[in-house]
Amino acid sequence: MKIYFSPLACSLATRIALYDAGVDATFVEVDGPSKRTVDGAAFLPVHGLGLVPVLETDDGRRITENAAVLQYIASAYPRAALAPKDAASITELQSWLSFVGTELHKAVYFPLLDKHASAEVRAYSLSKVDTRLGWLASQLEGRDFLLETFSVADAYLFAVLNWSVVTPIVLSRWPAIDRYMARLRERPSIARAVAEEMQLYMRELARRGEALPAAVASRVSQASSANG
Amino acid sequence: MKIYFSPLACSLATRIALYDAGVDATFVEVDGPSKRTVDGAAFLPVHGLGLVPVLETDDGRRITENAAVLQYIASAYPRAALAPKDAASITELQSWLSFVGTELHKAVYFPLLDKHASAEVRAYSLSKVDTRLGWLASQLEGRDFLLETFSVADAYLFAVLNWSVVTPIVLSRWPAIDRYMARLRERPSIARAVAEEMQLYMRELARRGEALPAAVASRVSQASSANG
Repeated sequence: MKIYFSPLACSLATRIALYDAGVDATFVEVDGPSKRTVDGAAFLPVHGLGLVPVLETDDGRRITENAAVLQYIASAYPRAALAPKDAASITELQSWLSFVGTELHKAVYFPLLDKHASAEVRAYSLSKVDTRLGWLASQLEGRDFLLETFSVADAYLFAVLNWSVVTPIVLSRWPAIDRYMARLRERPSIARAVAEEMQLYMRELARRGEALPAAVASRVSQASSANG
Repeated sequence: MKIYFSPLACSLATRIALYDAGVDATFVEVDGPSKRTVDGAAFLPVHGLGLVPVLETDDGRRITENAAVLQYIASAYPRAALAPKDAASITELQSWLSFVGTELHKAVYFPLLDKHASAEVRAYSLSKVDTRLGWLASQLEGRDFLLETFSVADAYLFAVLNWSVVTPIVLSRWPAIDRYMARLRERPSIARAVAEEMQLYMRELARRGEALPAAVASRVSQASSANG
């Protein structure tokens, strides 16, 4: 299995799911702006929209879109229990994957992370934050995960909320979300995936001659002192 | 089964799927701006985000998000064959539902239809149209449906692209999309759902004392002469 990803992009959720399932995959890094893999190959022939993640199965089938990639992994590795088995809970999982993809990823976070989005566009996205995260917090109150146990929906939600540090969104305003993220950060699959992609992200910035955003640098330095 | 919907909103896809499946459902109309049902009941207690569709099952379970509602209907009424049965095609269906929900509905069309979105916000959304619809057209070339046969993904895509008439998006720029929409418009479930919701939409505008957008009025008048 081959995964096309970009460091700390939404494809982080795919890596988390695979680490949780204990699956060996080949990760192919895609440079977002140039739409080329780190080895210089063109990425658009792989996916015409240039979006990660793309999961390529061993028989050459390509799967795009987070919700589809994540449900594929959950189905392909049932022993990892990354998705529920009963019909009602599968519907709930699909509802959460859709909420994260539409209301958070595309409506709020994508424009906030997009260098081509103007201040006015970002303000429009920010105007949606309180309703979305307020509602999400009400749903997470008293729960460890979106469903009864950890699922691919948590992996996706983590990958998206993890971007907050480079946006004006301060998750500690919603204690239920803050606690949820703190718990997930300690999960071994997530801790490993984040640490590895943070290294790759810093290398990507170095290649492009860009500086690490201050908010990220401060988190990295906190993490190093905690580990050191 | 009860469906909370707003006329010609994305919940149109739910109505199309139910008509295709020949299912009797109770439709409860929600006025978007006031977040109340037409009977005056508050809608936010039904869904805290105030978004349609919400599908309420006979045992009181509520399902939100288009991708989840549509897959639920396909599973609940398998004889209508609104979703494929084999694993690889189910993954494709999920990929399409996600693409329509994230790349088209939320990234492009929602801001274009939002009265609170400024001209700059709309221009940002419009800047994404050519890549998304160009790629979609390349996928539809030589096909009647997104998958081998009609599925809930077509119902969702139809409901979203159907909004183009009140945006600057001119679908005839992509002949494969234009032909796809023309074919779908003739499907009995879609023709009936659109005609009924158009009437409800005009009634909704009248209640609010708003005029029918010129582009819609011209289409309605064309349809009346064609029928008359």
